[in-house]
Amino acid sequence: MSFQHVAIIGLGLLGGSIGLAVEAHLPDVKTTGYDADPAVRERARARNLCGTIADDPVEAVRDADLVILCVPVGAMDAAAKAFAPGLLPEAVISDVGSSKLSVSQSLAKALPDHTIIPAHPVAGTEESGPDAGFSSLFHQRWCIITPPDGAAEGQIANLKSFWQGLGSTVEIMDAKHHDLVLAVTSHIPHLIAYTIVGTASDLEEVTRGEVIKYSAGGFRDFTRIAASDPVMWRDVFLNNRDAVLDMLDRFLGDLALMREAIRAGDGEMMFDQFSKTRAIRRRIVEQGQDDARPDFGRHDHE
Amino acid sequence: MSFQHVAIIGLGLLGGSIGLAVEAHLPDVKTTGYDADPAVRERARARNLCGTIADDPVEAVRDADLVILCVPVGAMDAAAKAFAPGLLPEAVISDVGSSKLSVSQSLAKALPDHTIIPAHPVAGTEESGPDAGFSSLFHQRWCIITPPDGAAEGQIANLKSFWQGLGSTVEIMDAKHHDLVLAVTSHIPHLIAYTIVGTASDLEEVTRGEVIKYSAGGFRDFTRIAASDPVMWRDVFLNNRDAVLDMLDRFLGDLALMREAIRAGDGEMMFDQFSKTRAIRRRIVEQGQDDARPDFGRHDHE
Ligand SMILES: NC(=O)c1ccc[n+]([C@@H]2O[C@H](COP(=O)([O-])OP(=O)(O)OC[C@H]3O[C@@H](n4cnc5c(N)ncnc54)[C@H](OP(=O)(O)O)[C@@H]3O)[C@@H](O)[C@H]2O)c1
Ligand SMILES: NC(=O)c1ccc[n+]([C@@H]2O[C@H](COP(=O)([O-])OP(=O)(O)OC[C@H]3O[C@@H](n4cnc5c(N)ncnc54)[C@H](OP(=O)(O)O)[C@@H]3O)[C@@H](O)[C@H]2O)c1
Repeated sequence: MSFQHVAIIGLGLLGGSIGLAVEAHLPDVKTTGYDADPAVRERARARNLCGTIADDPVEAVRDADLVILCVPVGAMDAAAKAFAPGLLPEAVISDVGSSKLSVSQSLAKALPDHTIIPAHPVAGTEESGPDAGFSSLFHQRWCIITPPDGAAEGQIANLKSFWQGLGSTVEIMDAKHHDLVLAVTSHIPHLIAYTIVGTASDLEEVTRGEVIKYSAGGFRDFTRIAASDPVMWRDVFLNNRDAVLDMLDRFLGDLALMREAIRAGDGEMMFDQFSKTRAIRRRIVEQGQDDARPDFGRHDHE
Repeated sequence: MSFQHVAIIGLGLLGGSIGLAVEAHLPDVKTTGYDADPAVRERARARNLCGTIADDPVEAVRDADLVILCVPVGAMDAAAKAFAPGLLPEAVISDVGSSKLSVSQSLAKALPDHTIIPAHPVAGTEESGPDAGFSSLFHQRWCIITPPDGAAEGQIANLKSFWQGLGSTVEIMDAKHHDLVLAVTSHIPHLIAYTIVGTASDLEEVTRGEVIKYSAGGFRDFTRIAASDPVMWRDVFLNNRDAVLDMLDRFLGDLALMREAIRAGDGEMMFDQFSKTRAIRRRIVEQGQDDARPDFGRHDHE
């Protein structure tokens, strides 16, 4: 790992977790943080999210050899332009945005003279803000790096060992493919969860109180996902539109088939569909991406 | 609580948990269990799910003053007919089925001379079978009782205290309303989860390996729900068709609006929708129906 000084722009869940994780795992690396919101900077100082918290974006990146943007996908461009004058010529710019193609393009445009190597740690919770971060967020989680054509191998390798240092396993991927994969594994699930929670809260025949009371039947998992940050998710859907619409239309096609099976009372079709999904679950648990305990520790009320 | 001897028909997750919960919380109540599958009866004996495990349904209910059917919704009728000859005339018949109107009707037809008071403990996991049950499954969970018109108040009260004894909070509801509420809070979430997991596993451009690797972004919560028992869920959709189709069509209408907002790049509409769902989550956590820790104890790999 050859980065000596990392600047973190945006000090919410992701930015704060990176700061704390560097302190815990790479104590020789200096960190400077900046956030556009003074109240966030204050909380960041109180929680020691970075070694130094700067009040100015240009100051924040002054001596950094790695700058990581941890702002919503739609704010990357403005954030990059704000710190650009302070950058060292050799500084590498990266980010943690949940969609990669449009971020990659807008950062390349905002910082035409710098090396940009986008990344996406596939790790998160539904919490956001400067109080949400924790140092182990990236443990045993994947981090996808999407280097543009012609990026220097040495710099990719440095970014890779940085993320490995925080506990992640790194994968290199094309930005466009990343956006398609994440549309399925993350963006569509969030869209569905936001929608069904919205549907449930607008019903007349079933009260909100009833929805909340009986959520243990499956709905509560959707509410957890639907409690995620609205700005972050609005930006994801605005920036990964094509892949999201593509995957959404396939899902809608499959759902229409299920609807017809229910209407027609086709138990065999349902049984077949419901049987094949168990295998996927088994592999996720085997690969340590989830906890097999029936209730993920929800039994703490015992 | 005035039941002295409970017969449990079907010894999977629900039946086994009732047996263990009675032993733990109502030690003076006798339990006899029966399951159509000899291998399940063997495991039930090994785990002591009930005081006695009978090899014959008629024997199982012989002295019981409460019989609880814990079989898939579509098997209620056959299970009831099989034990009918052994019933005491004064025995109360109940069940734990996830849909209530059709169960209520089919049990009334199968056992015309008996008092039937259906119930649904809103508690479960994605596991099934005789090894899945545990005595605290019903702690701090709701149990909905749906008595038919004219059911004796005393018998409803007895069933209510039985479930309270196992740790549940009891609510009385009309069977039809139950089916509508549960369509939203449980059946539609399961249908959606089964469908999206199916969609994801059939893609050509994105491999199953990728879907599994990057599931931490949201998808894994759907896989957990979609790992539920296929027979149980087929039966739920066959038996709660009208309410499920009603709710599904509302969800599809809302999803079409979201799709259009994404297509048109309408960030304001998305932000508004994504903001209103947080409040529901907060109330679910407040009411103890879920765990507020960001990762529900998934951090155990720290
Ligand atoms: N949450 C997840 O699960 C997750 C997972 C992987 C990747 N990501 C990605 O990580 C990024 C950050 O997400 P997060 O969850 O950490 O969000 P967050 O907790 O809301 O933090 C983002 C922070 O950036 C600040 N900010 C906004 N515009 C800025 C600007 N121009 N300059 C400086 N600071 C600015 C925000 O301040 P204000 O709030 O005052 O605007 C906020 O404090 C997003 O791109 C997201 O897609 C998120
Ligand atoms: N799982 C949940 O989360 C949940 C929550 C609330 C309510 N419920 C309801 O509870 C009921 C049972 O679900 P479960 O999760 O406990 O399922 P389960 O673990 O699969 O157990 C059901 C048991 O019933 C047996 N069985 C099937 N037909 C029978 C018959 N005619 N006579 C006697 N035994 C028979 C099954 O044997 P075979 O497997 O050999 O057929 C199986 O051992 C269902 O009506 C379900 O809707 C489930």
